[in-house]
Amino acid sequence: MSNIAKGLEGVLFTESKLTFINGAEGILTHLGIPIQEWAEKSTFEELSLALLDAELPTAEELAKFDAELRANRSIPAELVELIENMPRRAHPMQALRTAVSYLGLLDPQSEEVSQEARRAISIRMIAQFSTIIAAIKRAQEGQPIVAPRQDLTHAGNFLYMLNGKEPTAEQARLFDIALILHADHGMNASTFTAIATSSTISDMYSCITSAIGALKGPLHGGANEQVMVMLDEVGSPDKAAEYITDKLDKKEKIMGVGHRVYKYFDPRSRVLRDYAEVVANKEGRSNYYQILETIEKTVVDRIGSKGIYPNVDFYSGTVYSDLGISKEYFTPIFALARISGWCASVIEYSRDNRLLRPDAVYTGLSDQHYTELQDRQ
Amino acid sequence: MSNIAKGLEGVLFTESKLTFINGAEGILTHLGIPIQEWAEKSTFEELSLALLDAELPTAEELAKFDAELRANRSIPAELVELIENMPRRAHPMQALRTAVSYLGLLDPQSEEVSQEARRAISIRMIAQFSTIIAAIKRAQEGQPIVAPRQDLTHAGNFLYMLNGKEPTAEQARLFDIALILHADHGMNASTFTAIATSSTISDMYSCITSAIGALKGPLHGGANEQVMVMLDEVGSPDKAAEYITDKLDKKEKIMGVGHRVYKYFDPRSRVLRDYAEVVANKEGRSNYYQILETIEKTVVDRIGSKGIYPNVDFYSGTVYSDLGISKEYFTPIFALARISGWCASVIEYSRDNRLLRPDAVYTGLSDQHYTELQDRQ
Ligand SMILES: CC(C)(COP(=O)(O)OP(=O)(O)OC[C@H]1O[C@@H](n2cnc3c(N)ncnc32)[C@H](O)[C@@H]1OP(=O)(O)O)[C@@H](O)C(=O)NCCC(=O)NCCS
Ligand SMILES: CC(C)(COP(=O)(O)OP(=O)(O)OC[C@H]1O[C@@H](n2cnc3c(N)ncnc32)[C@H](O)[C@@H]1OP(=O)(O)O)[C@@H](O)C(=O)NCCC(=O)NCCS
Repeated sequence: MSNIAKGLEGVLFTESKLTFINGAEGILTHLGIPIQEWAEKSTFEELSLALLDAELPTAEELAKFDAELRANRSIPAELVELIENMPRRAHPMQALRTAVSYLGLLDPQSEEVSQEARRAISIRMIAQFSTIIAAIKRAQEGQPIVAPRQDLTHAGNFLYMLNGKEPTAEQARLFDIALILHADHGMNASTFTAIATSSTISDMYSCITSAIGALKGPLHGGANEQVMVMLDEVGSPDKAAEYITDKLDKKEKIMGVGHRVYKYFDPRSRVLRDYAEVVANKEGRSNYYQILETIEKTVVDRIGSKGIYPNVDFYSGTVYSDLGISKEYFTPIFALARISGWCASVIEYSRDNRLLRPDAVYTGLSDQHYTELQDRQ
Repeated sequence: MSNIAKGLEGVLFTESKLTFINGAEGILTHLGIPIQEWAEKSTFEELSLALLDAELPTAEELAKFDAELRANRSIPAELVELIENMPRRAHPMQALRTAVSYLGLLDPQSEEVSQEARRAISIRMIAQFSTIIAAIKRAQEGQPIVAPRQDLTHAGNFLYMLNGKEPTAEQARLFDIALILHADHGMNASTFTAIATSSTISDMYSCITSAIGALKGPLHGGANEQVMVMLDEVGSPDKAAEYITDKLDKKEKIMGVGHRVYKYFDPRSRVLRDYAEVVANKEGRSNYYQILETIEKTVVDRIGSKGIYPNVDFYSGTVYSDLGISKEYFTPIFALARISGWCASVIEYSRDNRLLRPDAVYTGLSDQHYTELQDRQ
């Protein structure tokens, strides 16, 4: 029993140059640069390229990459049609998983697994993810799908396609920061699932389809949506402490808190809290933020000693809400950002690939023989 | 470096009662019963149920399960339409991945993650996989899709839908044995990917979509197709030894040999070899078999000492060929069988779930700061 690495906690299975996390102190860096600096000074485009190539791009490289993203925003007409014909009530992550898988059917390069092909497909996928997710949302809400524009930033164009209205510069930048904060996070479950798929030398579309499926679960990317469900259940700040105490007494998990690696504040949650606060200070928007503050305090008081603190999903929803995004699309938006980390990690792992095949401790019967059906009791 | 578990080799991450493998001696059991007995005496239906419930069924339980499989063979009209409209030249595994993902959109129960729901969805998926795979093959070959029949066995009905013609009892039984041999195999890469997806408490369709993507790669389920490519490259038995020697000298991998766990003959390959031999003894069918025999001998002589022996994918293709199945569909047929192991393993892991989140050794830069673009060289 004791030699079972449950959840693979602490198991080191590869090397990586992309992301470093110090969970005890709440430190996160990409290419050695703190996440706070990326959020403050960079763009999602730049971080994506830095991850894909595992180095800071030059101005020229970034301009080229940005142009490629802009040029690749359109999705094939067959895919638009598929999205329009999807059942309206389907979970948006099931829709995204299906759409990306279908995109693989349409891409003539999809079977190529050279590093160059992986990179080229990644760039297209990063660009097209925003169009796909916006199209799913529009189709599900019965609104006409909005074609991408090339003159907007990645973040700005996404909000434009999502809402059918150009965002303000401030909104586009806020969303850009949210994307930066979610772009990569080491060997999280969805990235790991992408790598596991890739380890059989499968294609990029298979890897990313797998990752979407893993991100969807409430223990991972699905948590941001669940935080919003919780906020609506709580209803008002004065009920938050009791709600949490009650849940903890019943040994239920609180969504948006706790993390395998962070045993202290997730630094991304600190950046998002600051923006959530800005949003809250707008007239009439403070309810959610106040509930979250109380929940944070209650959680840290009650189980902070166990290393349970707010994670990235805790404050993100209130920021998204302010951008006019409803909670069903929070997890797809996580995917919109994490696609960069998924692709970069698959590319990095593929340089020195080895099939991922762990083992289980066998605890079943031994020395049995097949008995005829009529002889079984 | 030395504490990196590359490929997670030998890492024990959970317990399992389903499958036991002794790789040194070439032993494989399900529920403690040797694979040879399953192949000889059981059916794919029975093994699937035994895996799902982790125990040998009674006659009554099996009859009920069999009836459920038969009753659930049809697929929704929307899915048939999707398959008919897929690009003809797409890889069948990309088509399967997309079709299963789409099935999740159509299933009103797809978001349920209780153990009962997982089991109910699994039974439907096991039944529907055969209809989906046969439909993909028919559509890709421009033939009308054949609706399932309820009066045939799982294996017999699949061959019927695939070829539009009822198989002989002998053919149906041979295919049934092939399905039994591929149904489960411990923590192989695709099962592990399904579990990784499930570990975030994602839905069954996400788990199985992930598994399909992982199985697709040539280091895993994709190997059976590659063996056939190799046989056609070799052309005739007298060229086999030189072909292999040549590849090994160039340090290229031979498909269908080698295994993470088996360091001796994979017992499934022994069962399949016997059937491949029977097939070969039919008039004019011996070419493939003779090439394989020579390859096996050459590989064992040259690198058997390294633990490289034929695996399950080595002889399976010649058996499938004899059933009229072309090589593009070998890997989907692997999926047709492995779906039972995937579902059973997800259900078993979910009983005591923990998020799968390993770690990487960070080998990148530290203490960096964001520099403005114009300041980079
Ligand atoms: C993220 C998460 C899966 C990490 O889990 P993990 O490393 O497997 O941790 P475990 O589930 O083993 O939990 C360890 C202990 O902390 C407790 N714990 C962990 N997360 C908790 C939460 N969200 N609420 C309450 N208690 C929690 C567990 O009950 C357990 O307590 P115990 O030792 O007394 O039994 C987990 O914290 C969680 O489920 N969080 C909620 C979902 C979420 O927000 N996910 C997004 C992550 S970015
Ligand atoms: C299945 C497989 C991925 C297991 O791989 P693994 O446990 O990661 O083994 P490694 O790739 O680390 O190989 C270990 C050694 O055996 C050699 N080896 C493994 N499989 C080989 C093959 N198919 N042909 C030639 N040499 C092989 C490797 O070159 C390596 O040799 P080295 O130590 O001298 O460098 C591997 O055997 C393989 O690629 N086989 C071919 C694909 C296949 O048939 N897959 C279906 C499996 S059911």
